[in-house]
Amino acid sequence: MLRQTLRPGHAAHWCRQMSVVAKSLKYTQHGEPQDVLKLVEDQLADPKDKQVLVRILAAPINPADINTIQGKYPVKPKFPAVAGNEFVGEVICVGENVKGLQAGEHVIPLATGLGTWTTYGLYNQDQLMTVPKKVGLAEAATVTVNPCTAYRMLKDFVKLSPGDTVIQNGANSAVGQAVHQLCRAWGINSIGIVRDRPEICELKQLLECLGATAVLTEAEVRTSDIFKTGKVKRPKLAFNCVGGKSATEVSRHLDDCGVMVTYGGMSREPVTVATGPLIFKDIAFRGFWMTRWSKENYDAPERKQMFKELFELMEQGKFVAPTHEMVPLEKFKHAAAEALNFKGFTGKKFILNMRE
Amino acid sequence: MLRQTLRPGHAAHWCRQMSVVAKSLKYTQHGEPQDVLKLVEDQLADPKDKQVLVRILAAPINPADINTIQGKYPVKPKFPAVAGNEFVGEVICVGENVKGLQAGEHVIPLATGLGTWTTYGLYNQDQLMTVPKKVGLAEAATVTVNPCTAYRMLKDFVKLSPGDTVIQNGANSAVGQAVHQLCRAWGINSIGIVRDRPEICELKQLLECLGATAVLTEAEVRTSDIFKTGKVKRPKLAFNCVGGKSATEVSRHLDDCGVMVTYGGMSREPVTVATGPLIFKDIAFRGFWMTRWSKENYDAPERKQMFKELFELMEQGKFVAPTHEMVPLEKFKHAAAEALNFKGFTGKKFILNMRE
Repeated sequence: MLRQTLRPGHAAHWCRQMSVVAKSLKYTQHGEPQDVLKLVEDQLADPKDKQVLVRILAAPINPADINTIQGKYPVKPKFPAVAGNEFVGEVICVGENVKGLQAGEHVIPLATGLGTWTTYGLYNQDQLMTVPKKVGLAEAATVTVNPCTAYRMLKDFVKLSPGDTVIQNGANSAVGQAVHQLCRAWGINSIGIVRDRPEICELKQLLECLGATAVLTEAEVRTSDIFKTGKVKRPKLAFNCVGGKSATEVSRHLDDCGVMVTYGGMSREPVTVATGPLIFKDIAFRGFWMTRWSKENYDAPERKQMFKELFELMEQGKFVAPTHEMVPLEKFKHAAAEALNFKGFTGKKFILNMRE
Repeated sequence: MLRQTLRPGHAAHWCRQMSVVAKSLKYTQHGEPQDVLKLVEDQLADPKDKQVLVRILAAPINPADINTIQGKYPVKPKFPAVAGNEFVGEVICVGENVKGLQAGEHVIPLATGLGTWTTYGLYNQDQLMTVPKKVGLAEAATVTVNPCTAYRMLKDFVKLSPGDTVIQNGANSAVGQAVHQLCRAWGINSIGIVRDRPEICELKQLLECLGATAVLTEAEVRTSDIFKTGKVKRPKLAFNCVGGKSATEVSRHLDDCGVMVTYGGMSREPVTVATGPLIFKDIAFRGFWMTRWSKENYDAPERKQMFKELFELMEQGKFVAPTHEMVPLEKFKHAAAEALNFKGFTGKKFILNMRE
């Protein structure tokens, strides 16, 4: 009993003829992705009621996806589970009670943990959001986690005005790249700290091209007079995805009443907080978890506004996806293994490409 | 040109006859109190305009006073400086433009860093606040720093309701004792952590008598099921004046979205903040400095309300001064040396007694 969409074209036509076989990366127990993920074929039922059949076009591999498979993440799926959390897909056909969503439209998940490393998914309409087709597939596939994290961290902890400064370590991470681009769009100075490396010049050039005001190595920031000379205002806000000494060093540059927001812990070392700045400079140390925010603000106007702004920037070419590589679903083992190592976290993101 | 107060009595009478000689503990350079403080006699001019001549009755020795003398505190006095920051005193006589303040009334400082280790002080009326005479001298002398710190930390970081829980280390400190008493007055559970010691039973008894719901040693809190059993709700708020492992342990017990406020660093070790709780439990690490708050809220209604509530509790006998010993001004060297050692911070407070 499908409410057949009237839009002509291949997808709607095809949907009338047969139900769909989805190839999915599934797991039935926690473990390393290459051990526990199996490529499984399932016949999907036709969408009923408010269900939507979606052909997945691209689905990124995020570090949190790997941690979820390993059982190391606070989100625990029900087994058997389809791995993955983000995607962009094309609506194939919709149940009889779906309103305002048509075959051919592009959608991304509004809900988390839907299971997205699959060629086809059957979701409820209220778990999805339309994304303009002008938004690139890589941008749409990766918008709900990293760019939203950057957006919220820039909006929700400190009131920033044009000319204010933000500092961050792991400045070449996917979130870091999003921070630079949003800062550029909003007129905020974005200072990035990265580890030294042989290709440091190219990395600085890339991040400055994305909008960073200045990119310094961990050694350079220790001796930099960038804030002392008043060339750039002292940061009101710092982002930390590293921990350990890097976090301490970054927090040292914060202005009075500044806030450091931790959203990752790549070094696996805790954040060390000196007592003096806490008390006498009123520095605050906070944390941010996008999954929590999204759940608590599922239908909030702030969330709609955020996606609207991000889509507009993406359509205008002012916001691009993080450094990434598209890989076919069959190569997931290699990609999953790479996604959690250091390069995976602060370098390129793998995006599963489902378009055969 | 004194506006002679009409109230009869010794003080006003005496004021007509001669100006006053103040014996003050003064210093002209930073250093250890016993080395740099000198007992100096100065003839004070009669109060003019909005000035008030105050006979100091009692003035506590706070750790911050010692740090200020040592030059280790962010507050830097102009030399020559009279040491000390808190007092309770009696108004002797007032300048011609003072309104609503009379000889014989008890006053405490509204301003910080006035210099209070002296027998007489000449202050401006707007630097002073009247305190009801029913409030005990030890309570009045020590109200502006420790009880106000406890009050603000309980009010300004988390919304607490009766039945909620607060946890703190250094629970026998002067602030700690104030926290227990305010929690008792407001129906909040107050869990105190202290170091183990030979007289632990007496210490627990004392703190429970002051209002602590439970007092645990650092070893006991690690294995306690007090929160797991639901006997007491998980704390929304933690206070830390120790740092290091103690702070980490205390923060572990915080409920989701809990806040740990650091107001001291007795162990001289930083606060170590695990990345997981920051991100996934949304725990925040903040700091509090009473001096900053008082400056920023000098005339704020919140400040008047705070003192009103504290004075009422003190008048009703529901809030007493921290463990203390009154010492004569001449014994300041011994008291100053004691004030900074461990006992001085979490044990008894010395209060200089100026009533010869």
